[in-house]
Parts: sequence; structure tokens; C-alpha cells
Amino acid sequence: MSPKITTELLKQLRQVMKNPKYVQEPVQAYIVPSGDAHQSEYIAPCDCRRAFISGFDGSAGTAIVTEQHAAMWTDGRYFLQAAHQMDNNWTLMKMGLKDTPTQEDWLVSVLPEGSKVGVDPFIIPADQWKRMSKALRSAGHDLVPVKENLIDTIWTDCPQRPCKALITLDLSYTGVSWRDKIVALRSKMAERKVMWFVVTALDEVAWLFNLRGSDVEYNPVFFAYAVIGMNTIRLFIDGDRMMDPAVREHLQLDSTLEPEFKIQVMPYGSILSELQAVGAGLSPKEKVWLSDKASYALTEAIPKAYRYLTPYTPICIAKAVKNAAETEGMRRAHIKDAVALCELFNWLEKEVPKGTVTEIIAADKAEEFRSQQKDFVELSFATISSTGPNGAIIHYKPVPETNRTLSVNEIYLLDSGAQYKDGTTDVTRTMHFGTPSAYEKECFTYVLKGHIAVSAAIFPNGTKGHLLDSFARSALWDCGLDYLHGTGHGVGSFLNVHEGPCGISYKTFADEPLEAGMIVSDEPGYYEDGSFGIRIENVVLVIPAETKYNFKNRGSLTFEPLTLVPIQTKMIDVNLLTEKECNWVNEYHQKCREVVGAELERQGRHEALRWLLRETEPLARVQ
Amino acid sequence: MSPKITTELLKQLRQVMKNPKYVQEPVQAYIVPSGDAHQSEYIAPCDCRRAFISGFDGSAGTAIVTEQHAAMWTDGRYFLQAAHQMDNNWTLMKMGLKDTPTQEDWLVSVLPEGSKVGVDPFIIPADQWKRMSKALRSAGHDLVPVKENLIDTIWTDCPQRPCKALITLDLSYTGVSWRDKIVALRSKMAERKVMWFVVTALDEVAWLFNLRGSDVEYNPVFFAYAVIGMNTIRLFIDGDRMMDPAVREHLQLDSTLEPEFKIQVMPYGSILSELQAVGAGLSPKEKVWLSDKASYALTEAIPKAYRYLTPYTPICIAKAVKNAAETEGMRRAHIKDAVALCELFNWLEKEVPKGTVTEIIAADKAEEFRSQQKDFVELSFATISSTGPNGAIIHYKPVPETNRTLSVNEIYLLDSGAQYKDGTTDVTRTMHFGTPSAYEKECFTYVLKGHIAVSAAIFPNGTKGHLLDSFARSALWDCGLDYLHGTGHGVGSFLNVHEGPCGISYKTFADEPLEAGMIVSDEPGYYEDGSFGIRIENVVLVIPAETKYNFKNRGSLTFEPLTLVPIQTKMIDVNLLTEKECNWVNEYHQKCREVVGAELERQGRHEALRWLLRETEPLARVQ
Repeated sequence: MSPKITTELLKQLRQVMKNPKYVQEPVQAYIVPSGDAHQSEYIAPCDCRRAFISGFDGSAGTAIVTEQHAAMWTDGRYFLQAAHQMDNNWTLMKMGLKDTPTQEDWLVSVLPEGSKVGVDPFIIPADQWKRMSKALRSAGHDLVPVKENLIDTIWTDCPQRPCKALITLDLSYTGVSWRDKIVALRSKMAERKVMWFVVTALDEVAWLFNLRGSDVEYNPVFFAYAVIGMNTIRLFIDGDRMMDPAVREHLQLDSTLEPEFKIQVMPYGSILSELQAVGAGLSPKEKVWLSDKASYALTEAIPKAYRYLTPYTPICIAKAVKNAAETEGMRRAHIKDAVALCELFNWLEKEVPKGTVTEIIAADKAEEFRSQQKDFVELSFATISSTGPNGAIIHYKPVPETNRTLSVNEIYLLDSGAQYKDGTTDVTRTMHFGTPSAYEKECFTYVLKGHIAVSAAIFPNGTKGHLLDSFARSALWDCGLDYLHGTGHGVGSFLNVHEGPCGISYKTFADEPLEAGMIVSDEPGYYEDGSFGIRIENVVLVIPAETKYNFKNRGSLTFEPLTLVPIQTKMIDVNLLTEKECNWVNEYHQKCREVVGAELERQGRHEALRWLLRETEPLARVQ
Repeated sequence: MSPKITTELLKQLRQVMKNPKYVQEPVQAYIVPSGDAHQSEYIAPCDCRRAFISGFDGSAGTAIVTEQHAAMWTDGRYFLQAAHQMDNNWTLMKMGLKDTPTQEDWLVSVLPEGSKVGVDPFIIPADQWKRMSKALRSAGHDLVPVKENLIDTIWTDCPQRPCKALITLDLSYTGVSWRDKIVALRSKMAERKVMWFVVTALDEVAWLFNLRGSDVEYNPVFFAYAVIGMNTIRLFIDGDRMMDPAVREHLQLDSTLEPEFKIQVMPYGSILSELQAVGAGLSPKEKVWLSDKASYALTEAIPKAYRYLTPYTPICIAKAVKNAAETEGMRRAHIKDAVALCELFNWLEKEVPKGTVTEIIAADKAEEFRSQQKDFVELSFATISSTGPNGAIIHYKPVPETNRTLSVNEIYLLDSGAQYKDGTTDVTRTMHFGTPSAYEKECFTYVLKGHIAVSAAIFPNGTKGHLLDSFARSALWDCGLDYLHGTGHGVGSFLNVHEGPCGISYKTFADEPLEAGMIVSDEPGYYEDGSFGIRIENVVLVIPAETKYNFKNRGSLTFEPLTLVPIQTKMIDVNLLTEKECNWVNEYHQKCREVVGAELERQGRHEALRWLLRETEPLARVQ
């Protein structure tokens, strides 16, 4: 991996930073954040501006270019990668280390007095703008919005913004029509006394209209905004995809409808001017609801007194609670996914000893088996296929330079998932195709104990997920071990594999309480640098729990695993399990046998079925 | 309990709210918070202004009086009490209920346009001022500081501010001299590049100077402020207590000292003008460090650009980590406290069946036994002595109207503690003097399992206490039970029984990480309204833990119980305990026998010793 040479690009950028064609006044610094105009986690190639200017293409990082300096802030996952990908023009700012300055502090230390710091107001979220603007102002500088993105002005071969065909989802997938979703949204708006709601997150637009796209890899979303009034619906979207008869029919664009359900389709690029028009026409007490993560540009379009900002939108919260149709779809998707993985692991068991299977081949094979399943659309994220020391790199993705051959001497960790039209999957299994060492089994078993502790936990209705995080760590902590990531994230229903507002992590306290119907991952791990990685991940559904008592009539919740893939018993040190844990494994495997076994049978996959039956033999605990 | 008649008082208050002698312009509303000028949890009688004006004397509540209304905000612990103590002039605002307006919202709804809302700037913390001022301003009103406290102007028989003699603590108690504490503080100040530190919390002043007082019941503190510069020490304190030769000697007031250790003693009331002088004399980049909970008055004395505000002060953090002398003192105090409780429970066992022991008598007896111990100073909080249904009232304090007689048919909960010159105690035991029901034992055992889960937890260095809270609840949650309070709080060393910055609660995320030497309580419970209450509380010391492995060389921590009082085995359903839990109880009781047994022997308390030996017989677990 050789670094990108950026000398010429930085020169060009520094020129446009002073070019009156693009900036009212010269800016002495320009900030290039990671995101897109929708604050997406995964972004389209045309939005990879920070990677373009610096060469560093990790998922998180912020570049700042001044007249003299170019600096990149990123976190511990990416220190090595960023150092490899960037040339000497760049200074790496290692976030999380004690001596690393914040972006604000660094800017204040390098800028001449009274500087202007530019940023694309469509890319920076309003809450970040506020924080940075305040810090700069108190040091005598100004954060200024630069309407034209300066990277785009020098990015001559910038890819086009994707504008791919849409998929319409009928009631059998969504459970609720888009009209009923609009009705529910308007009732939430009425509760909070707001007149308008601005939908800025791509997955929220997709969910609201029961549409899916493929503008962003792995995330079945499409570039669009929506503005919902009490009597109007405006959808901002480009391309001829609105000409598709199926889409027109789905959205009832050509039907005679009550006016409040008539969708006005407008160009994607007109969102700002339309929102400004809304802002200008507000009467006193008419509020506009936006996410506090919406872009500064859109937030500013609404005069401050009229804004109603919340960390989670009502769509985000409604979307997290899956209805019966979505839950059933997720169950189906996970059964198909398990079929593919049984095939894969059976195949690996045969092929790995030959010494010809690399991490990339294994990942491709996993995709091949998944793609054979009904309603398969694409992967839900880049497959983490890692063996031996690569397993300890938590966000590893095999590339030719690092590609390692699977062997009977190393642990293999596969974290993968897919988008099916009926659901999204995300599963991690850690396997050994030879004989694991006692130490590897010991560590695996602690991770398994943590996985079970969360999966089998019973907790009161209204409990926030972060309160469960320590359950996943307790067995590791007892032996002085731990893992440096959260335990779980929300999972969309044929939508983003990471979604809010719930999760299980020691890091987030802003999560919304868990309720029945929410879906999260349960994925504790253990990683030994330079040696191996272990993670056991199921996607689990929050369900009501039956308990002996019922304090204050609050009711209790627990989890039901949707993922039904055997957990390799060869890796388990049964003597470290309690009886309860042992029973949990046996019951889980019994369910895999019944549910996935029936589907393997139905699909005539007899060899994989035999593999499943062998891998799900009950554990026998020595008393 | 009849309500306080406040018609005349409110009339007087409304008059002074318009009286130009006290207010520059009339105020249309006046806020009376709970606290004192040091944001203390426990306050002196002269600071009980909210109780004076309303009659409601619970520990938490804010009164607001307008020309037409008088309203009291308090939380769920006090709904009943406040309703009983206040007359019809007052509206009770039940905090935590969905329809209860915030103080700001309520003010906006009742005030005429452009109103002034007054508050004593010495009582309101700066962070609260900021929030309220912003909310009022955005609705067109103004929050204004009223220098003279308006309650004091009408409180004709207001008690004097206490000004009691001081206790000096030598190195055998404190481990570190006040000079060394000043040196350490100045080094923290230098690290943060601040020139001045303002000590506003009473326990921080007491800790810094190794002095104790008795101005506030239960808290061995005295009214004082301190301002520490890099070369100066100013102590603001009233009364002739500075004439005490022992205090003068302790503070070396009459010695020839290096100037940077020379303490300037100034009148308590001069803090504001002195701080204003400091504020006026600052050069650019000279910062002044204050807690963000310091009063608005003192915070405003420093121009905004010069303020350095943190949620926890360096003294708060240093004070939390006990040194060897303090830890040894805490151990001694807890042994003496255990002696007193062994005597008490032995006495109760004999007396309760006679039907003559009330909750008040039991509480008094506990105090009597404690007062027989060396270096006893006073109780550390009002004893919670509660039997039967009273046990379910979490902050119960027996008074003649509620005083219940202990019997062999009801559970008895005693939460009590004392201040000894060598340490502070806080212990809860739940006892049955007859035969507990299977259900009572079951609930007790779940609480015990939670207590053990925290006490025996092993966790990485740097873990915040709130991440341990769910361990205490897990056994209760499994059966659908829970308790509605946090699991633990920091405990001072011959200081406040509640102190920051650490704790174990699902509610606080701003706690500082636990480190070896910190001391917290571990007190899960279970409460059944109208029936009984269960709580098992030990004070525990954070100590390094030995673990099999040591991930990233972080090291691990666990807890050592300082409290050594038997947990009633009669209340335990042994079959609900795991082997590990059973061993924990037996080892704990073995330690009580050895350590407290030896002290009972030494003090010649043979009957209590026999009680201890009987109560600490090992549990036998049925396999």
C-alpha cells in the first residue's frame, strides 16, 4: 500500500480557498469531514471527499487543510491504515491519545488572528457546527459556510452521484403502508405541536415511503429528502426513477387522493430553497422538527425560534420497533442466511485442510452461498473474513496485501451479513478447523458466557441497552480480560445494518429504552494482538419475558436469537459453563436443528444438513 | 402532622418582592431553592428557607412564589410528606410525572409579559442559573439576582448561622498534611494552567485543611470558603474559632512560614468582594478554577473569559481516593461500628419479643451503643429504623406519628451510621426476630445475590461505577423484581456520608472511574409497598484484584467490605445461592468472627460475642 501523493491537490485546494469565485472572503482553513449531506455512516463514492484529498479511506476521519498544514483526525482503529495511506503532507492526529489536540484547539494554535475557517454547510451536522463555531469564535476566528464544496471544485474525475432504480415494498414486507406511517408521524407532530417534519437521514426516507434503493453500497437507500407538513408531503429526489410505473403506482402519484396524501415530487437539489420558503412562511408558534444531526445548511434554513430539534426523530424511534410483518421477514432472512453459512462451514471444513482457501476466497464463497437464497439483494457490509492474527483487527477486511490462507492451526473469524428483501442479517462465528488450544477454548468460552449473559438476560421494560453491556464482559473481567468495542447495535429491517436509537454499549448513554420488537446485535469478543480474534454474534429480537413476579406492573423483556447458526462446540470448554449456560447452548442448537434443518431439507442441501446435525449435538457437562 | 399556615408569610414575602429596599425593580416571582451557599446536601437550620416559607421540610424541593401562586417541586420520595406539610396556598408539583411542568415552563405559563424572576445568587448554582436564565429569556422574562435573601428579611426568628469549635486532625488520621495537600493542589492547577482555585464545598474546605467542624448536623464540616493562589492561601471563616490555640498551631498561623504557606484568615462574608478583587486583577491567560456547581454569585465574580469550570474539582477527586492512614481509620471505625451493632442486635433479639421496642427506641439504642465506642462524634445521618410497611419507605425516619413497634412477625430494616474521628460508617441490615416467610426469604436472597455480585465483581481499572449497577439487579430482574434507587454512593473519611465523584447507579454517567482507595456503598434492596422493605448495605473499599490474565496491562479492581456485621442467615434461602455465593457469605462471616470477634473480646462484650458467633455459623448448601 503506497501513500497517495497529494502535493498538487493540496496546492489546488489552497488556491480555491482564496478564489472569490467560491468564497466570499479567503478562508485560512478548510474542514473536510467524512460524511455526506445525510450524515450517513456508509457513503457513496462521490461523497468520499476526505479520501480523495488525503488518500485515507477508513470509515471515520476529518481532514483540515490550512495554508501551511494538512492534518487528519482519526481513531485507534485507523492509526496504521491512515499512516500508510497518507503522504508527508499530512499530519496524523491520533484521537483518544492524551496529547492529541482537538480540531478546535489545533486550529486555534496554528491560525493567524481573525481567521476564517470554511466548511460545507451541507456536510457538517448542526450540533458539530455549533460546538466548533463557539470554540473558534471565543478565540477570535470565524467558522463560515462555503456553499460550493471546495473538494468538488478540484475533483475533476469525481464519480456521478448514484441514481439507481428503486424497489417498492408491499405490505407483506412492511406491515404498514406509507400512508399509515405518515398518519402516525403527523400524530407525533401534533403531540409536540410542530407543523413540519424534515426527513434528512436516508434510511428514514426509505422506511417512511416503503421504498428501497441501491445508491450506497450495503445500505438499501437512495438519495432523497422529505418534508412532511400536516397537509402536504414533499419528496426531494432526482432521476427518472420517479418515471418507473411501479414506483408511481406505489406512491399513488397518478391517483386522485385526499390532498394530504398527495406526494409532490421535487428535485433533490431544491431542498434548501424549499425549506427556506417554509421557514419564511411560518406563523408564530409554528415549529419545524429536525434531527439535531441534520446538516447546518438545512437547520439554518429554519429561523432559530421555529426549530424543534431532537437527538432521535419519531421516524428513527418508530423504525426501530419492528412490526409482525418485519419480524417475520427478519426470521425468514435469518433462516436463509443460516442455510448459506451451514453450506459455507461444511465447505470450509473440507477445503481448509487442502491449504487453498484464503480469506478472500472464503468471503467470496460466503457471498456465493448467500446469493443462492431467495430475495437476496446484496451484502449488508464488507465481509470480515480473518484468520490468525488478522482476527485481532476488529474492523479487518481482507485485501490482497493482507490476504491470509486459512489453516487447521489458526482460529478463523467470519463476521458477515446480507440484505434480503425480507430482512437484514449480521452474524459472527469463530471456528477452528483443527484442534484449538486449551487457551483458545478458554477465551472462546468466556466470550460465549458473555454472549449468553446478554441473550438470556431478563430486564424491566424501559431498560436502556447500555445497562446490559457489563453482563457481556463479566466472565472476561473475572480473568482480567476485556474487549474494546460495544456489545451491540440496532439492526434495520432490509435497511442499514447499524441503526439507532438502541444498542448495547458502555459508550452510549443517549440510547432509547429497549422495547419489544426492537432488534439488536449481541456480539462480545476477545482479541489478542498478533495472535487471534474471537467474536460470537447473533442478531436478537427484544421480546416480552415471563417472570415469577411483576414489580410495579412494569413487565419484563428478554431476547430471542434470530440468528440460528451453530456455535462451534469444539471451541467450548464445557467445564467453564454453568448448568444454565450449558442448557442455553443445547436449546439454541436444538432450535437451529429444527428450524434451519427443516429449511436445509426443503432446499435439498443434505450434506450441509448432516454438518448441521453433527455440529448441534448436545454438550455433555461433566458434573 | 398538620400543615404550616403560610398565608401571612406569603403576604409578607410578596410585599418584600416589591420593596425597593431589597429589589432594584419589583420581582414578579421569587425562587427559594433547597440548598445553602455551598450547595450542601445537608444544611444548617438557618438555611432551611424553603421549609420556613412552605412548611415542607424534605431534603429536596424548590419553592416558587409569584404574586398569585405558590408552587413546590419535589420528587416521588416526598409527594405524601409535602402534601401533608403544606397548606392550601401551595400547589404541589410532582416531579417525574409526565404532566408536571418544569419550573421554567410553569413560570412562563403564569407570569405576565416581561417579568422579573428573583433568586438569591449565593444559593443557586451557576449551571442551574444558566439553564433557567436562558429559558426565561427566550420567553421574554429575566432571571435577576436579589442580593439580600428575601426569606431572611421576613424570617424574624431565624436561627443564627452555627459557628462551632473546630477539631484538628493530625497526620495519624489524615495521612497527608494540609501543606502537602496545598502543594498537590497547586500542581494540579499548574497542569491546567490556572492561577487560582476557589474552594466552595464545605467538605472540600474541611478536607484541605485537615479540620472538622459541627456546623451542620451529621456532616463534620464548618462554614468557610478558601481561595488558593499559587503563592497565597485565603481562608474565609467567622467566629472566634480561629482564636483556639490548637487551631492556630495546626494551621501554623503564628509561625514564620514561607509566604506561600501563610494562611490569611478573612471574614466569611468577605468572599465575594475578595473574589471580585481577584477577578479584577487578572492578567490575560490567568484562569480561575471553580466547580460548575459553585454559586452564581461567586462564579459571576470572575469575568467569563477567566473562568475554568469543571464538574468535579481536583479536591473532590483527591479526597475520594483514601490514603493508607484514612483507609486504616475507616477499617477501625467499621470494627467499632460492628461492635455496636452486634450489641444492638443481641439486645433486640431479647427485647423485641416483649413488644416494647419501637423504631425510635431501637434507633436510640443503636446510637447509645455507638456512642460507647472510642472517638465517636455523632451519627452520620438520621437513622432509618423501620419495621413492616415502614421499611418500604426508602428514606423513612421514625417520628412519633409513624413510630411502629418491632415484632416477631415483621421484617426490621436498620440503615444507620456514625462519624468517628477515624472514619464514617453507613450500614444497613434487614432482620427478622421471628420466622420469616418463604417469600420474604426469597426476596432477601435475591437482594443478597445482588449485593454479592457487586461486592465480588472484578472489573478493569478505569471502569466507571455505573457500569456495575446492573450486577446488583440481575437476580431480582430474573424474577421480575427491582428497586428504584441507585446501588451505591461515595463515602467520606470522617466526612460526608455521601460524596462524589464516584458511585454505583444507573442514573449517573458523570461519575469518575473507580480507582483503588475509593470507598463506596453497596446497597441493593427490594421494597414492597405497604408490606416490607429489604436492603443489605456494606461500605466497601476499591482494591486491586489478582486475575489470571492482564489484558493490555490495565490491571483489575474489586471490592473489600469494610463493614463487618453479620448478614442474618435466617433470612437466606440457601438453595437459591450458587456455590460461589455461599462461599462468599461464609468467608465474609468468618472475617466478621475473626476481626469483630477479637474486638468484642477485647472490650469484654461476651454476650454480644456469643451472638456474633451464633450468627456467623457457616451456611450449609444442599447439593
